Amino acid sequence: MKQIDVCLTPELLHLHAMDNTIVIVADVFRATSCMVTAFAYGVDSIIPVATIDECQLWQERGYLAAAERNARKVDGFELDNSPFTYMQEMIRGEKVAMTTTNGTYAITRSRAAVKVLVGSFLNLEAIARYLRSEPYDVLVLCAGWKGKVNLEDTLFAGALVDRLKSHFMTAEDSALMAWRLYQQGKDNLLSYLANSSHIRRLQRLGIQRDITYCLQHDLYDVIPVLRGNSLVSMEL
Amino acid sequence: MKQIDVCLTPELLHLHAMDNTIVIVADVFRATSCMVTAFAYGVDSIIPVATIDECQLWQERGYLAAAERNARKVDGFELDNSPFTYMQEMIRGEKVAMTTTNGTYAITRSRAAVKVLVGSFLNLEAIARYLRSEPYDVLVLCAGWKGKVNLEDTLFAGALVDRLKSHFMTAEDSALMAWRLYQQGKDNLLSYLANSSHIRRLQRLGIQRDITYCLQHDLYDVIPVLRGNSLVSMEL
Repeated sequence: MKQIDVCLTPELLHLHAMDNTIVIVADVFRATSCMVTAFAYGVDSIIPVATIDECQLWQERGYLAAAERNARKVDGFELDNSPFTYMQEMIRGEKVAMTTTNGTYAITRSRAAVKVLVGSFLNLEAIARYLRSEPYDVLVLCAGWKGKVNLEDTLFAGALVDRLKSHFMTAEDSALMAWRLYQQGKDNLLSYLANSSHIRRLQRLGIQRDITYCLQHDLYDVIPVLRGNSLVSMEL
Repeated sequence: MKQIDVCLTPELLHLHAMDNTIVIVADVFRATSCMVTAFAYGVDSIIPVATIDECQLWQERGYLAAAERNARKVDGFELDNSPFTYMQEMIRGEKVAMTTTNGTYAITRSRAAVKVLVGSFLNLEAIARYLRSEPYDVLVLCAGWKGKVNLEDTLFAGALVDRLKSHFMTAEDSALMAWRLYQQGKDNLLSYLANSSHIRRLQRLGIQRDITYCLQHDLYDVIPVLRGNSLVSMEL
Protein backbone atom coordinates (compact mmCIF):
# COMPACT_ATOMS: atom_id res chain seq x y z
CA MET A 1 0.00 0.00 0.00
CA LYS A 2 1.21 3.50 -0.73
CA GLN A 3 2.30 5.65 2.23
CA ILE A 4 1.49 9.22 3.15
CA ASP A 5 3.81 11.04 5.50
CA VAL A 6 3.99 14.60 6.80
CA CYS A 7 7.12 16.68 7.30
CA LEU A 8 6.16 19.43 9.74
CA THR A 9 8.95 21.83 8.70
CA PRO A 10 11.67 21.94 6.01
CA GLU A 11 14.20 21.61 8.88
CA LEU A 12 13.19 17.95 9.16
CA LEU A 13 13.22 17.18 5.43
CA HIS A 14 16.58 15.37 5.60
CA LEU A 15 14.88 12.66 7.68
CA HIS A 16 12.56 11.73 4.82
CA ALA A 17 13.30 9.69 1.72
CA MET A 18 12.09 11.46 -1.41
CA ASP A 19 12.71 8.82 -4.04
CA ASN A 20 9.46 7.25 -5.23
CA THR A 21 7.64 10.11 -3.54
CA ILE A 22 5.51 13.03 -4.67
CA VAL A 23 6.03 16.03 -2.41
CA ILE A 24 3.17 18.47 -1.79
CA VAL A 25 4.43 21.79 -0.48
CA ALA A 26 1.99 23.80 1.65
CA ASP A 27 2.39 27.35 2.85
CA VAL A 28 -1.30 28.13 3.07
CA PHE A 29 -0.87 31.60 4.65
CA ARG A 30 -0.24 32.66 1.95
CA ALA A 31 2.37 31.67 -0.65
CA THR A 32 0.90 28.44 -1.96
CA SER A 33 -2.65 29.82 -1.82
CA CYS A 34 -1.41 32.71 -3.98
CA MET A 35 0.22 30.32 -6.43
CA VAL A 36 -2.92 28.21 -6.81
CA THR A 37 -5.02 31.36 -7.27
CA ALA A 38 -2.58 32.70 -9.86
CA PHE A 39 -2.84 29.54 -11.96
CA ALA A 40 -6.63 29.55 -11.59
CA TYR A 41 -6.51 33.07 -13.06
CA GLY A 42 -4.35 32.03 -15.99
CA VAL A 43 -0.75 32.85 -15.10
CA ASP A 44 1.69 31.09 -17.46
CA SER A 45 4.35 30.09 -14.91
CA ILE A 46 5.84 31.00 -11.56
CA ILE A 47 9.52 30.75 -10.79
CA PRO A 48 10.10 30.41 -7.05
CA VAL A 49 13.36 32.06 -6.02
CA ALA A 50 15.21 32.16 -2.74
CA THR A 51 16.26 35.79 -2.52
CA ILE A 52 14.89 39.26 -3.23
CA ASP A 53 17.93 40.02 -5.42
CA GLU A 54 17.19 37.02 -7.59
CA CYS A 55 13.58 38.11 -7.85
CA GLN A 56 14.74 41.52 -9.06
CA LEU A 57 16.90 39.91 -11.77
CA TRP A 58 13.87 38.11 -13.18
CA GLN A 59 11.90 41.35 -13.00
CA GLU A 60 14.52 43.00 -15.19
CA ARG A 61 13.99 40.20 -17.72
CA GLY A 62 10.28 41.00 -17.96
CA TYR A 63 8.77 38.81 -15.25
CA LEU A 64 6.16 40.15 -12.89
CA ALA A 65 7.84 40.10 -9.49
CA ALA A 66 6.29 39.10 -6.20
CA ALA A 67 8.23 39.43 -2.99
CA GLU A 68 7.28 39.22 0.61
CA ARG A 69 9.28 39.17 3.78
CA ASN A 70 7.78 38.75 7.22
CA ALA A 71 4.29 38.82 5.69
CA ARG A 72 4.81 42.24 4.03
CA LYS A 73 5.28 43.22 0.38
CA VAL A 74 8.78 44.32 -0.60
CA ASP A 75 9.01 47.78 -2.20
CA GLY A 76 9.45 47.94 -5.97
CA PHE A 77 7.63 44.72 -6.85
CA GLU A 78 4.32 44.43 -8.70
CA LEU A 79 2.75 41.67 -6.65
CA ASP A 80 2.53 40.89 -3.00
CA ASN A 81 1.53 37.85 -1.01
CA SER A 82 -2.22 38.44 -0.95
CA PRO A 83 -4.20 36.02 -3.12
CA PHE A 84 -6.49 38.88 -4.18
CA THR A 85 -3.52 40.44 -6.01
CA TYR A 86 -3.61 37.52 -8.43
CA MET A 87 -7.28 37.86 -9.36
CA GLN A 88 -6.73 40.32 -12.17
CA GLU A 89 -6.62 40.21 -15.94
CA MET A 90 -3.03 41.58 -16.09
CA ILE A 91 -1.56 38.30 -14.86
CA ARG A 92 -3.10 36.12 -17.63
CA GLY A 93 -0.31 34.50 -19.66
CA GLU A 94 2.40 36.22 -17.65
CA LYS A 95 5.52 34.78 -16.08
CA VAL A 96 5.94 35.54 -12.40
CA ALA A 97 9.02 35.39 -10.17
CA MET A 98 8.12 34.92 -6.51
CA THR A 99 10.05 34.87 -3.27
CA THR A 100 8.43 34.41 0.12
CA THR A 101 9.62 33.88 3.67
CA ASN A 102 8.96 30.16 3.84
CA GLY A 103 7.09 28.77 0.83
CA THR A 104 9.62 29.15 -1.95
CA TYR A 105 12.35 27.80 0.30
CA ALA A 106 10.32 24.65 0.90
CA ILE A 107 9.75 24.20 -2.84
CA THR A 108 13.40 24.57 -3.75
CA ARG A 109 14.36 22.10 -1.01
CA SER A 110 12.12 19.40 -2.53
CA ARG A 111 13.65 19.03 -5.98
CA ALA A 112 14.84 15.48 -5.33
CA ALA A 113 11.25 14.17 -5.32
CA VAL A 114 9.54 12.40 -8.25
CA LYS A 115 7.29 15.46 -8.52
CA VAL A 116 6.77 18.62 -6.48
CA LEU A 117 3.20 19.91 -6.33
CA VAL A 118 1.84 23.06 -4.72
CA GLY A 119 -1.00 22.49 -2.29
CA SER A 120 -3.52 24.62 -0.45
CA PHE A 121 -7.04 24.19 0.83
CA LEU A 122 -8.14 25.90 -2.42
CA ASN A 123 -7.04 22.94 -4.57
CA LEU A 124 -7.21 20.18 -1.97
CA GLU A 125 -9.49 17.81 -3.88
CA ALA A 126 -7.64 18.31 -7.17
CA ILE A 127 -4.43 17.26 -5.40
CA ALA A 128 -6.10 14.35 -3.60
CA ARG A 129 -7.68 13.02 -6.79
CA TYR A 130 -4.36 13.15 -8.62
CA LEU A 131 -2.47 11.40 -5.81
CA ARG A 132 -5.03 8.60 -5.61
CA SER A 133 -4.41 7.89 -9.28
CA GLU A 134 -0.60 7.80 -9.03
CA PRO A 135 1.55 4.86 -7.86
CA TYR A 136 3.86 6.97 -5.65
CA ASP A 137 4.16 7.58 -1.92
CA VAL A 138 3.23 11.05 -0.71
CA LEU A 139 5.07 13.48 1.54
CA VAL A 140 3.33 16.67 2.62
CA LEU A 141 5.95 19.29 3.33
CA CYS A 142 4.68 22.03 5.61
CA ALA A 143 6.57 25.27 4.98
CA GLY A 144 6.22 26.33 8.62
CA TRP A 145 7.52 29.66 9.90
CA LYS A 146 11.27 30.23 9.87
CA GLY A 147 11.97 26.59 10.53
CA LYS A 148 9.34 26.09 13.20
CA VAL A 149 6.10 24.21 12.78
CA ASN A 150 2.86 26.08 12.32
CA LEU A 151 -0.73 25.10 12.82
CA GLU A 152 -2.21 26.15 9.47
CA ASP A 153 0.14 24.09 7.29
CA THR A 154 -0.22 21.15 9.67
CA LEU A 155 -3.99 21.41 9.27
CA PHE A 156 -3.64 21.33 5.49
CA ALA A 157 -1.51 18.19 5.85
CA GLY A 158 -4.21 16.70 8.06
CA ALA A 159 -6.88 17.57 5.51
CA LEU A 160 -4.94 15.79 2.78
CA VAL A 161 -4.40 12.74 5.01
CA ASP A 162 -8.15 12.78 5.62
CA ARG A 163 -8.89 12.72 1.88
CA LEU A 164 -6.36 9.97 1.20
CA LYS A 165 -6.57 7.72 4.24
CA SER A 166 -8.50 4.92 2.56
CA HIS A 167 -5.85 4.73 -0.21
CA PHE A 168 -2.66 5.31 1.79
CA MET A 169 -1.01 4.10 5.00
CA THR A 170 0.12 6.73 7.48
CA ALA A 171 3.67 5.75 8.33
CA GLU A 172 4.61 8.17 11.07
CA ASP A 173 3.12 10.02 14.02
CA SER A 174 3.36 13.40 12.30
CA ALA A 175 0.70 12.29 9.80
CA LEU A 176 -1.46 10.97 12.62
CA MET A 177 -1.04 14.18 14.62
CA ALA A 178 -1.90 16.38 11.62
CA TRP A 179 -4.99 14.30 10.88
CA ARG A 180 -6.13 14.40 14.52
CA LEU A 181 -5.74 18.18 14.65
CA TYR A 182 -7.70 18.55 11.41
CA GLN A 183 -10.44 16.30 12.76
CA GLN A 184 -10.65 18.48 15.85
CA GLY A 185 -10.69 21.79 13.97
CA LYS A 186 -12.29 21.16 10.58
CA ASP A 187 -15.79 22.34 11.44
CA ASN A 188 -14.51 25.83 12.09
CA LEU A 189 -10.92 26.24 10.99
CA LEU A 190 -11.04 30.00 11.39
CA SER A 191 -11.84 29.92 15.08
CA TYR A 192 -9.60 26.87 15.57
CA LEU A 193 -6.71 28.94 14.25
CA ALA A 194 -7.62 32.05 16.24
CA ASN A 195 -4.83 31.61 18.81
CA SER A 196 -2.16 30.48 16.38
CA SER A 197 0.98 32.56 16.02
CA HIS A 198 0.56 33.35 12.32
CA ILE A 199 -3.04 34.44 12.63
CA ARG A 200 -2.04 36.81 15.40
CA ARG A 201 0.77 38.09 13.16
CA LEU A 202 -1.52 38.46 10.13
CA GLN A 203 -4.28 40.13 12.09
CA ARG A 204 -1.88 42.82 13.14
CA LEU A 205 -1.38 43.41 9.40
CA GLY A 206 -5.14 43.66 8.81
CA ILE A 207 -5.53 40.81 6.36
CA GLN A 208 -8.39 38.88 7.86
CA ARG A 209 -9.97 38.68 4.40
CA ASP A 210 -6.96 36.73 3.07
CA ILE A 211 -7.17 34.27 5.93
CA THR A 212 -10.83 33.54 5.38
CA TYR A 213 -10.20 33.10 1.66
CA CYS A 214 -7.23 30.75 2.10
CA LEU A 215 -9.25 28.39 4.32
CA GLN A 216 -11.88 27.66 1.64
CA HIS A 217 -11.72 24.07 0.41
CA ASP A 218 -11.80 22.90 -3.22
CA LEU A 219 -12.27 26.22 -4.96
CA TYR A 220 -10.05 25.49 -7.97
CA ASP A 221 -9.26 22.48 -10.08
CA VAL A 222 -5.61 23.37 -10.72
CA ILE A 223 -2.34 21.74 -9.65
CA PRO A 224 0.86 23.75 -9.89
CA VAL A 225 3.78 21.40 -10.54
CA LEU A 226 7.50 22.12 -10.56
CA ARG A 227 9.06 21.60 -14.00
CA GLY A 228 12.72 22.54 -14.14
CA ASN A 229 12.97 25.80 -12.26
CA SER A 230 9.37 26.87 -12.79
CA LEU A 231 5.93 26.00 -11.56
CA VAL A 232 3.46 25.37 -14.35
CA SER A 233 -0.13 24.23 -14.34
CA MET A 234 -0.51 20.46 -14.67
CA GLU A 235 -2.72 19.31 -17.54
CA LEU A 236 -5.73 17.68 -15.88
CA MET B 1 4.64 36.84 31.67
CA LYS B 2 6.76 33.71 31.47
CA GLN B 3 6.58 31.68 28.26
CA ILE B 4 6.22 27.97 27.67
CA ASP B 5 7.31 26.56 24.35
CA VAL B 6 7.56 23.05 22.93
CA CYS B 7 10.35 21.67 20.76
CA LEU B 8 8.89 18.63 19.02
CA THR B 9 12.25 16.95 18.30
CA PRO B 10 15.92 17.60 19.17
CA GLU B 11 16.45 18.28 15.44
CA LEU B 12 14.67 21.62 15.96
CA LEU B 13 16.47 22.61 19.16
CA HIS B 14 18.77 25.09 17.39
CA LEU B 15 15.69 27.24 16.66
CA HIS B 16 15.06 27.80 20.36
CA ALA B 17 16.83 30.13 22.74
CA MET B 18 17.84 28.35 25.94
CA ASP B 19 19.14 31.24 28.02
CA ASN B 20 16.73 32.11 30.81
CA THR B 21 14.97 28.82 30.15
CA ILE B 22 14.43 25.59 32.03
CA VAL B 23 14.33 22.63 29.65
CA ILE B 24 12.17 19.61 30.45
CA VAL B 25 13.26 16.56 28.48
CA ALA B 26 10.57 13.96 27.80
CA ASP B 27 11.04 10.50 26.33
CA VAL B 28 8.03 8.95 28.00
CA PHE B 29 8.33 5.56 26.21
CA ARG B 30 10.48 4.81 28.14
CA ALA B 31 13.77 6.51 29.06
CA THR B 32 12.53 9.42 31.14
CA SER B 33 9.82 7.29 32.78
CA CYS B 34 12.59 4.88 33.79
CA MET B 35 14.70 7.70 35.21
CA VAL B 36 11.84 9.09 37.26
CA THR B 37 11.02 5.61 38.55
CA ALA B 38 14.67 4.98 39.42
CA PHE B 39 14.86 8.14 41.54
CA ALA B 40 11.54 7.29 43.18
CA TYR B 41 13.16 3.97 44.16
CA GLY B 42 16.24 5.64 45.59
CA VAL B 43 18.93 5.56 42.93
CA ASP B 44 21.79 7.94 43.77
CA SER B 45 22.47 9.34 40.31
CA ILE B 46 22.15 8.57 36.61
CA ILE B 47 24.75 9.55 34.08
CA PRO B 48 23.21 9.77 30.61
CA VAL B 49 25.73 8.82 27.94
CA ALA B 50 25.56 8.91 24.16
CA THR B 51 27.10 5.59 23.20
CA ILE B 52 27.10 1.96 24.29
CA ASP B 53 30.91 2.01 24.54
CA GLU B 54 30.78 4.91 26.97
CA CYS B 55 28.16 3.07 28.99
CA GLN B 56 30.51 0.08 29.21
CA LEU B 57 33.34 2.27 30.50
CA TRP B 58 31.17 3.45 33.39
CA GLN B 59 30.14 -0.14 34.05
CA GLU B 60 33.80 -1.07 34.44
CA ARG B 61 34.07 1.70 37.07
CA GLY B 62 31.28 0.13 39.13
CA TYR B 63 28.18 1.78 37.77
CA LEU B 64 25.07 -0.22 37.00
CA ALA B 65 24.70 0.00 33.23
CA ALA B 66 21.48 0.43 31.30
CA ALA B 67 21.51 0.34 27.54
CA GLU B 68 18.78 0.12 24.98
CA ARG B 69 18.81 0.39 21.24
CA ASN B 70 15.68 0.27 19.09
CA ALA B 71 13.60 -0.44 22.20
CA ARG B 72 15.62 -3.57 23.13
CA LYS B 73 18.11 -4.20 25.95
CA VAL B 74 21.74 -4.47 24.91
CA ASP B 75 23.52 -7.70 25.96
CA GLY B 76 25.87 -7.52 28.94
CA PHE B 77 24.13 -4.72 30.82
CA GLU B 78 22.30 -5.04 34.14
CA LEU B 79 19.35 -2.81 33.36
CA ASP B 80 17.10 -2.31 30.39
CA ASN B 81 14.59 0.31 29.41
CA SER B 82 11.59 -1.06 31.27
CA PRO B 83 10.55 1.01 34.29
CA PHE B 84 9.82 -2.21 36.21
CA THR B 85 13.56 -2.99 36.15
CA TYR B 86 14.12 0.00 38.42
CA MET B 87 11.64 -1.08 41.10
CA GLN B 88 14.09 -3.19 43.07
CA GLU B 89 16.11 -2.84 46.22
CA MET B 90 19.43 -3.37 44.40
CA ILE B 91 19.32 0.07 42.81
CA ARG B 92 19.00 2.03 46.09
CA GLY B 93 22.02 4.33 46.50
CA GLU B 94 23.59 3.10 43.26
CA LYS B 95 25.04 5.09 40.41
CA VAL B 96 23.64 4.21 36.98
CA ALA B 97 25.00 4.88 33.50
CA MET B 98 22.26 4.92 30.89
CA THR B 99 22.17 5.19 27.12
CA THR B 100 18.98 5.08 25.08
CA THR B 101 18.01 5.66 21.47
CA ASN B 102 16.58 9.13 21.91
CA GLY B 103 16.29 10.27 25.52
CA THR B 104 19.90 10.61 26.58
CA TYR B 105 20.70 12.38 23.31
CA ALA B 106 18.03 14.97 24.07
CA ILE B 107 19.41 15.51 27.58
CA THR B 108 22.99 15.98 26.43
CA ARG B 109 21.82 18.45 23.76
CA SER B 110 20.16 20.68 26.39
CA ARG B 111 23.15 21.57 28.55
CA ALA B 112 23.02 25.28 27.62
CA ALA B 113 19.78 25.77 29.56
CA VAL B 114 19.49 27.29 33.04
CA LYS B 115 18.43 23.84 34.25
CA VAL B 116 17.61 20.52 32.58
CA LEU B 117 14.85 18.48 34.22
CA VAL B 118 13.58 15.03 33.35
CA GLY B 119 9.85 14.82 32.78
CA SER B 120 7.28 12.09 32.37
CA PHE B 121 3.61 11.66 33.13
CA LEU B 122 4.75 9.96 36.34
CA ASN B 123 6.13 13.21 37.82
CA LEU B 124 4.03 15.72 35.85
CA GLU B 125 2.63 17.65 38.81
CA ALA B 126 5.99 17.75 40.62
CA ILE B 127 7.50 19.37 37.53
CA ALA B 128 4.56 21.74 37.03
CA ARG B 129 4.61 22.89 40.65
CA TYR B 130 8.32 23.58 40.49
CA LEU B 131 8.06 25.53 37.22
CA ARG B 132 5.23 27.69 38.55
CA SER B 133 7.49 28.75 41.41
CA GLU B 134 10.49 29.63 39.23
CA PRO B 135 11.03 32.90 37.29
CA TYR B 136 12.24 31.21 34.10
CA ASP B 137 10.70 30.44 30.72
CA VAL B 138 10.06 26.79 29.95
CA LEU B 139 10.94 24.68 26.94
CA VAL B 140 9.62 21.13 26.72
CA LEU B 141 12.01 19.09 24.59
CA CYS B 142 10.35 16.00 23.14
CA ALA B 143 12.94 13.31 22.49
CA GLY B 144 11.00 11.99 19.49
CA TRP B 145 12.15 8.97 17.52
CA LYS B 146 15.39 9.20 15.57
CA GLY B 147 14.84 12.87 14.87
CA LYS B 148 11.17 12.62 13.98
CA VAL B 149 8.30 13.79 16.14
CA ASN B 150 6.26 11.28 18.09
CA LEU B 151 2.81 11.41 19.58
CA GLU B 152 3.55 10.29 23.14
CA ASP B 153 6.18 12.92 23.92
CA THR B 154 4.01 15.57 22.27
CA LEU B 155 1.14 14.52 24.53
CA PHE B 156 3.39 14.91 27.58
CA ALA B 157 4.29 18.42 26.36
CA GLY B 158 0.58 19.16 25.96
CA ALA B 159 -0.12 17.87 29.47
CA LEU B 160 2.52 20.20 30.92
CA VAL B 161 1.15 23.15 28.91
CA ASP B 162 -2.27 22.26 30.33
CA ARG B 163 -0.96 22.37 33.91
CA LEU B 164 0.91 25.66 33.34
CA LYS B 165 -1.33 27.62 31.01
CA SER B 166 -2.67 30.04 33.61
CA HIS B 167 0.92 30.97 34.62
CA PHE B 168 2.65 30.96 31.22
CA MET B 169 2.08 32.30 27.70
CA THR B 170 2.30 29.84 24.82
CA ALA B 171 4.57 31.51 22.33
CA GLU B 172 4.45 29.19 19.35
CA ASP B 173 2.11 26.88 17.49
CA SER B 174 3.92 23.75 18.63
CA ALA B 175 2.78 24.41 22.22
CA LEU B 176 -0.75 25.06 21.01
CA MET B 177 -0.75 21.89 18.90
CA ALA B 178 0.57 19.75 21.75
CA TRP B 179 -2.05 21.15 24.12
CA ARG B 180 -4.87 20.58 21.61
CA LEU B 181 -3.79 16.97 21.06
CA TYR B 182 -3.66 16.38 24.81
CA GLN B 183 -7.13 17.90 25.22
CA GLN B 184 -8.41 15.54 22.55
CA GLY B 185 -6.78 12.43 23.97
CA LYS B 186 -6.47 12.90 27.73
CA ASP B 187 -9.57 10.95 28.74
CA ASN B 188 -8.08 7.79 27.31
CA LEU B 189 -4.45 8.22 26.36
CA LEU B 190 -3.95 4.52 25.85
CA SER B 191 -6.55 4.20 23.11
CA TYR B 192 -5.61 7.63 21.73
CA LEU B 193 -2.08 6.30 21.24
CA ALA B 194 -3.17 2.96 19.82
CA ASN B 195 -2.31 3.85 16.22
CA SER B 196 0.93 5.66 16.96
CA SER B 197 4.15 4.32 15.51
CA HIS B 198 5.90 3.70 18.82
CA ILE B 199 2.99 1.82 20.37
CA ARG B 200 2.90 -0.43 17.34
CA ARG B 201 6.66 -0.93 17.72
CA LEU B 202 6.41 -1.62 21.47
CA GLN B 203 3.46 -3.94 21.13
CA ARG B 204 5.49 -6.11 18.83
CA LEU B 205 7.95 -6.37 21.72
CA GLY B 206 5.20 -7.38 24.15
CA ILE B 207 5.54 -4.54 26.61
CA GLN B 208 1.96 -3.37 26.93
CA ARG B 209 2.44 -3.29 30.71
CA ASP B 210 5.20 -0.67 30.38
CA ILE B 211 3.01 1.52 28.21
CA THR B 212 0.10 1.47 30.65
CA TYR B 213 2.47 2.26 33.50
CA CYS B 214 4.19 5.17 31.73
CA LEU B 215 0.86 6.89 31.04
CA GLN B 216 -0.08 7.20 34.72
CA HIS B 217 -0.10 10.80 35.94
CA ASP B 218 1.49 12.13 39.14
CA LEU B 219 2.72 8.91 40.66
CA TYR B 220 5.96 10.27 42.11
CA ASP B 221 7.04 13.52 43.69
CA VAL B 222 10.59 13.48 42.30
CA ILE B 223 12.40 15.71 39.80
CA PRO B 224 15.61 14.45 38.23
CA VAL B 225 17.85 17.42 37.40
CA LEU B 226 21.09 17.52 35.45
CA ARG B 227 24.06 18.55 37.63
CA GLY B 228 27.36 18.45 35.79
CA ASN B 229 27.29 15.21 33.84
CA SER B 230 24.82 13.42 36.10
CA LEU B 231 21.15 13.46 36.88
CA VAL B 232 20.41 13.71 40.57
CA SER B 233 17.19 14.05 42.51
CA MET B 234 16.23 17.65 43.21
CA GLU B 235 15.64 18.49 46.89
CA LEU B 236 11.93 19.32 47.13
